[in-house]
Amino acid sequence: MHNIDLLSDLKVKVDTKILLFVMDGLGGLPGPGGLTELEAAKTPNLDALAKKGVSGLIDPVARGITPGSGPGHLGLFGYNPLEHMIGRGALEAAGIGFDLQRKDVATRFNFCTLDKNGNITDRRAGRISTDINKKMVEKMRNISLPGIEVFVETVKEHRGIAIFRKEGLKGNLHDTDPQRLGVPPLKAVTSDGGKSQEMADHANLWLAKVYEVLKNESPANGILTRGWCNYPEIPTYQEVYGLNPACIALYPMYRGVAQFAGMKVYTEGIKDFATKVDVLKNVWGDHDFFFFHYKHTDSAGEDGDFNRKVACIEEVDQALPCILENKPDVIAITGDHSTPSVIKAHSWHPVPILMAGTYIRPDAVSSFGERAAISGGLGRFNACYIINELLAAGGRITKYGA
Amino acid sequence: MHNIDLLSDLKVKVDTKILLFVMDGLGGLPGPGGLTELEAAKTPNLDALAKKGVSGLIDPVARGITPGSGPGHLGLFGYNPLEHMIGRGALEAAGIGFDLQRKDVATRFNFCTLDKNGNITDRRAGRISTDINKKMVEKMRNISLPGIEVFVETVKEHRGIAIFRKEGLKGNLHDTDPQRLGVPPLKAVTSDGGKSQEMADHANLWLAKVYEVLKNESPANGILTRGWCNYPEIPTYQEVYGLNPACIALYPMYRGVAQFAGMKVYTEGIKDFATKVDVLKNVWGDHDFFFFHYKHTDSAGEDGDFNRKVACIEEVDQALPCILENKPDVIAITGDHSTPSVIKAHSWHPVPILMAGTYIRPDAVSSFGERAAISGGLGRFNACYIINELLAAGGRITKYGA
Repeated sequence: MHNIDLLSDLKVKVDTKILLFVMDGLGGLPGPGGLTELEAAKTPNLDALAKKGVSGLIDPVARGITPGSGPGHLGLFGYNPLEHMIGRGALEAAGIGFDLQRKDVATRFNFCTLDKNGNITDRRAGRISTDINKKMVEKMRNISLPGIEVFVETVKEHRGIAIFRKEGLKGNLHDTDPQRLGVPPLKAVTSDGGKSQEMADHANLWLAKVYEVLKNESPANGILTRGWCNYPEIPTYQEVYGLNPACIALYPMYRGVAQFAGMKVYTEGIKDFATKVDVLKNVWGDHDFFFFHYKHTDSAGEDGDFNRKVACIEEVDQALPCILENKPDVIAITGDHSTPSVIKAHSWHPVPILMAGTYIRPDAVSSFGERAAISGGLGRFNACYIINELLAAGGRITKYGA
Repeated sequence: MHNIDLLSDLKVKVDTKILLFVMDGLGGLPGPGGLTELEAAKTPNLDALAKKGVSGLIDPVARGITPGSGPGHLGLFGYNPLEHMIGRGALEAAGIGFDLQRKDVATRFNFCTLDKNGNITDRRAGRISTDINKKMVEKMRNISLPGIEVFVETVKEHRGIAIFRKEGLKGNLHDTDPQRLGVPPLKAVTSDGGKSQEMADHANLWLAKVYEVLKNESPANGILTRGWCNYPEIPTYQEVYGLNPACIALYPMYRGVAQFAGMKVYTEGIKDFATKVDVLKNVWGDHDFFFFHYKHTDSAGEDGDFNRKVACIEEVDQALPCILENKPDVIAITGDHSTPSVIKAHSWHPVPILMAGTYIRPDAVSSFGERAAISGGLGRFNACYIINELLAAGGRITKYGA
């Protein structure tokens, strides 16, 4: 029996409130002083919570696996990222804030360069600038197809997305990117034995018109599609847990994944961390689960700025008392992956987590940090089981069997 | 490959003896003094064993899941409770000590109240007393069916069980409880595409006779059945491990699950903990695996009596030297779930475990307690792998692969 099905079977309705506070890229590695960013930061409030609560380490996807932000958040939300895959087209759409609908089919595409025979000479069209991309996209937006709506959006540099909107459309197509040079782009064909033939027909007609529209452009005179998919079919928090969840996050990617999970996404009035804390307070009465996201730890790590990451963690620590004034019955604080400043990128290292609440069994850990968390009572576990701990401590699952 | 199949493939026959000592509901939460029941108890003998051996924490079913006693014991016995489900009818039969046979089909039932049109007005017949239940059951026992034996037993209040005994009978039926009021009870229908049609026919005939026999009673003038099943098909200890196991437990539920696992159940002469210790000693020469169960830790926890739970743990500690005189080659001491006094119920918190034996690799843990166990060498793991550790330390599984 899958974990989500088990939790769904056991769910009970109570009025406890759960707060999942995600500090993006929280985990780190020792800097020059021998301490990690989290260990070096002065965090009296986080430490007090760690002392009162229980700590541990999570593997967002699996041991040794460096997660992208999509899988990282899927794991935090209780979905095994290896079982519940969100199609790349949908993830990219979420990532740029496109309001994907349940009837949509989405695909990513790269602009590419084709020679006079239609063979690919550059799969990324010399990595054109985002500005040039936008001009190409404008041209593509003039294309219309009979009986179906099409949306084209710039992502960045040579990357874009296309969305096809029609009720009942199935989007299981193979990539049209042949992944090599000297051959033409592939035709769109179904990957589900013909069930998505309607989409394949629309796609081929559309692609022919795209090549026509771009034929005199240089270097971006073609496109290669990848990651065709429908709206992600992941069970929502309402369906499986009976929760009414809210997402307070500024960046589109996390908002997108949260939306797929059924969360109500709040963006209005959010300008920075302080206004985010305000919004949390304002909507506290309307929900029972809150995904609250802090981004800057990750950005600082990606920039390789150890001291700025330390400062970000300290900013969160100072705001913690204000956040706790909402009185969550259970709170978990963790990250979606590690972003050590010395690596300047996401990494595979497990992420510290702390939990506090009424019926949490405390451990001997008295500070929030990577090394301290090793001896925490939660142990080291896969992120997709955080939801089990949260629901249990929130009194939201009943006994299994007599 | 499933764990049980792996262990079965690797089993070797040696004459070591394994003792699995289960203190029911052992795990706890801090009481007024900040220590858990196990931490507060004076346990010099358990502490000495923890010092000599290896400790850890188990999740009986899965992280965050509060187990009933049935799944809790299945896990301890090495069966993944999410894969090896014991039908509720069989579990209830075990729970009241009914001697279920391999050819039996069992179902639970509730007495209910029907109005003059045969529609349900109360699914629990006003929660009648056990005494009234017994009178109704007496009437139902007068019903006979052609070609099949039927047994009816009171469980408690409005609950009972019925057992149908006939060689080759398949018991996959849907509940006849429609789970709502204002409609009549459902007919018995098969849930396996008709393979259990014979049982469905017997059930419908029997139910018609039950309604006839009870029609003038009030408020219990009908029954609703739930949890139809055959004798549980779990592989026995003899089959998979080549063990000859014994169960020394006083309460029917655990004896039932043990019996399903193939254990010889000893009850004669058991009046209390002291006589249980005697029986263990008496049958020590006849078996190589012993499931030894202590109940009172759970009862004290369920009663919310912190001090009594402490006293129970101390009672066990004092008896430990006597138990160890049997010289098990491997001993594990743990619980089937936590029952913290402050919660007064089963809980999801992981349960401490300690193991000792000849080839156990010791850790730095020097006392038996929830917080001490966190840093134990066994780590935190699923209870169904305890059997791996026991068999390994008992020299009962050989090398995997060349």
